[in-house]
Amino acid sequence: MRSRLLVLIFYILSLLLHLPTTTASSCCSIEGLPLVRNISELPQDNYGRGGLSHITLAGSALHVLKEVELWLQTCSPGSRTPIHRHSCEEIFVFLNGSGTLYLASSSHEKYPGKPQEHFVFANSTFHIPVNDVHQAWNTNEHEDLQMLVIISRPPVKVPFGDDFLLQSLCHPFCSLHL
Amino acid sequence: MRSRLLVLIFYILSLLLHLPTTTASSCCSIEGLPLVRNISELPQDNYGRGGLSHITLAGSALHVLKEVELWLQTCSPGSRTPIHRHSCEEIFVFLNGSGTLYLASSSHEKYPGKPQEHFVFANSTFHIPVNDVHQAWNTNEHEDLQMLVIISRPPVKVPFGDDFLLQSLCHPFCSLHL
Repeated sequence: MRSRLLVLIFYILSLLLHLPTTTASSCCSIEGLPLVRNISELPQDNYGRGGLSHITLAGSALHVLKEVELWLQTCSPGSRTPIHRHSCEEIFVFLNGSGTLYLASSSHEKYPGKPQEHFVFANSTFHIPVNDVHQAWNTNEHEDLQMLVIISRPPVKVPFGDDFLLQSLCHPFCSLHL
Repeated sequence: MRSRLLVLIFYILSLLLHLPTTTASSCCSIEGLPLVRNISELPQDNYGRGGLSHITLAGSALHVLKEVELWLQTCSPGSRTPIHRHSCEEIFVFLNGSGTLYLASSSHEKYPGKPQEHFVFANSTFHIPVNDVHQAWNTNEHEDLQMLVIISRPPVKVPFGDDFLLQSLCHPFCSLHL
């Protein structure tokens, strides 16, 4: 009789522990930020770069992520990211528009410092090996180039400048072009 | 005169090194795979799970990434991912449809093992803290739930099962529910 009672109590307790809460709340992860975030309501910045819109969807500063960070970036027609590189992995997903990705790849090419041009388009993806110098350029006169950018090991340290050769010769994390 | 000649040679050499190659080639990174990949042409699998479509856009196995991996997953109406957790960070971006994300968060909730329901929708984003048990469920009867999934530290090891409580009690990487 006593063992049956114990089994019943255990069963009721386990049921209580399993029931999901009925609230459809998305509140609150860290410092009052919602867990599920509407991307169209997130703040954007251009960091002083004309034609650029940058939104951090999930990152190290706001969301205390340590291993990965996600951005939504939009380049208006003719605009481009700086020529840069970083000691982390990066993946692009192009959502809208088209353009050119310049990549001076020490791992893929014979001559580091000499960028290859890659046509990029909506619904395409691309990854950048660690420390390869690169630049995304909206060469489409009529459309914004919109892309999701994923980086490992945030926050990223980006030495950048206007020169593929210097970027290739530059030591990782040097501050020459910061 | 000699110094001017040297400057001229250096200038011509630097110009040659800076000129991008004129081919718009996206070939070839590793084992003949194109660098820029058309997402609609990538292979998909469901890993034996009905209603799931999984495409690896960039990953450890094919693209030799070591720090981050990117998937495109689609759940048909009523289908869901397994209840699972992993010792890495994860970010979701919901592209189409709507559904429910169940999260049994040891860091956010008072009672680990008791999942909270979060409504997710197109153009929303969400991140999963390391080792929090979770499940994405397409509760919309009329639309596919499509999401980009980013994980750190690939390849992911996923102990999963049908029970939030056991997932919470389970030691990281235990094989109880593999």
